[in-house]
Amino acid sequence: MTGSELTNVKSPRVKAARRLTKRAFREQDRRFLAEGPQAVREALKLDGVPLDLFTTAEAELRHPELITEATLKGVPVHRASGEVIAELTQTVTPQGLVAVCRHVHVPLDALDEAVAEPRLVAVLAHVRDPGNAGTVMRAADAAGADAVIFTDASVDPYNGKCVRASAGSLFHLPVVIGAPVAAAVRQLKERGLRVLAADGAGKHTLDDVDLAGPTAWIFGNEAWGLPEEILAEADDVVRVPIYGQAESLNLATAAAVCLYSSARAQRVP
Amino acid sequence: MTGSELTNVKSPRVKAARRLTKRAFREQDRRFLAEGPQAVREALKLDGVPLDLFTTAEAELRHPELITEATLKGVPVHRASGEVIAELTQTVTPQGLVAVCRHVHVPLDALDEAVAEPRLVAVLAHVRDPGNAGTVMRAADAAGADAVIFTDASVDPYNGKCVRASAGSLFHLPVVIGAPVAAAVRQLKERGLRVLAADGAGKHTLDDVDLAGPTAWIFGNEAWGLPEEILAEADDVVRVPIYGQAESLNLATAAAVCLYSSARAQRVP
Repeated sequence: MTGSELTNVKSPRVKAARRLTKRAFREQDRRFLAEGPQAVREALKLDGVPLDLFTTAEAELRHPELITEATLKGVPVHRASGEVIAELTQTVTPQGLVAVCRHVHVPLDALDEAVAEPRLVAVLAHVRDPGNAGTVMRAADAAGADAVIFTDASVDPYNGKCVRASAGSLFHLPVVIGAPVAAAVRQLKERGLRVLAADGAGKHTLDDVDLAGPTAWIFGNEAWGLPEEILAEADDVVRVPIYGQAESLNLATAAAVCLYSSARAQRVP
Repeated sequence: MTGSELTNVKSPRVKAARRLTKRAFREQDRRFLAEGPQAVREALKLDGVPLDLFTTAEAELRHPELITEATLKGVPVHRASGEVIAELTQTVTPQGLVAVCRHVHVPLDALDEAVAEPRLVAVLAHVRDPGNAGTVMRAADAAGADAVIFTDASVDPYNGKCVRASAGSLFHLPVVIGAPVAAAVRQLKERGLRVLAADGAGKHTLDDVDLAGPTAWIFGNEAWGLPEEILAEADDVVRVPIYGQAESLNLATAAAVCLYSSARAQRVP
């Protein structure tokens, strides 16, 4: 524990962390905030990623193992008031733990090195809702994906809501940020992946396509799906079949269904 | 269009609608609010369900077909100010259309009559987050489920956030509210459905179980899953396999993966 409890939201240390709630400053500082015990626990597993940990006295009592872990790893722990923690989070009921982390993403051209033989990759193109994006990262991780790529027109994965919705998955698998769609698709094809665009206008349904081989899925915008030029770049456009009266699925649930269909086809004979 | 524009949030008509933002009044009046063009469109397909439609001048211009439809069906249309609409909705950016609807759910003991041969049913037990519950309804509808059952400890499906997340599906399939879990499970078993509890502690994974027959899925609470007594009532406890490092899936994405696995197994040879 360093020094006395931080109670002044205008103190330099708090201000330096608080600016990370804004995308421009996250990019400038190459840092972001991970909030809540789950995210902090996963961040602490990566050496050099958590740079500072802010905690309330209450959270310290509730999660002593995280404080111990941070201390062992040489991450400075700062006791802070609830008010200070609230300044750093966008949640209605903050859980009293916030870690300042350094960026963890990899550049698109380093992905080849980061993943030897990719078999399942999720690409988020024009996904704008941070909750959806985080939920897709979590589903991709659960389905055993090798990487997640955020294209240049997508939400910032370091957005607080996105980090929270990812439930730690942001720290689990290689994440690429800001890749131009065309470059990402070209690279994935070169690596031998079949690139499938998930879109309600697809000619084929999930049930008609063979998903046993290495596959990259492209997921589009919540409201208007994927633009023509991306549909054209894909090897195939595939829709989740709708058996009832619903017009469509929510983006994150559709992505989970696609990714798990691939995971199953790649594993179950 | 009836009368002049409603601008007073304290007018009796607005107050009568506004009280429906509270669960106790929804139950007392047996009415609820459906917000946005998609929900209003689906509500208008059911005779006698929409009782009043509030619209801003802007929304009227954007969705003239809905105003025409309401008028043809004898649903009174009330022009209202943006401020009045904002009073009736909990959205950050209301879309200017709110319908007062009568309840559409069916009692548990009327479900047998409503659905001749159920093959896929979703049961929400202790689901508390309205967004999750609505997303599960939408996924169940998309997967061709025959009914959705909210047990007595679950969120109110008429909650504004839940109606919105269901994207119209609340109006598409029979929804049971407030059923005791044990009674629901008994009835589903009597109808010949295999009752599967979706839980991370399941012995079997989705890939190990034969889902071709009539199936009811029970989904539990976001944080703590399903209680022992429900796990004991189920024919089997099944987990979505986790192939990566994620601890679990978000409730709604897990539900979508389970429901689509059933839908596929029941259709694809």
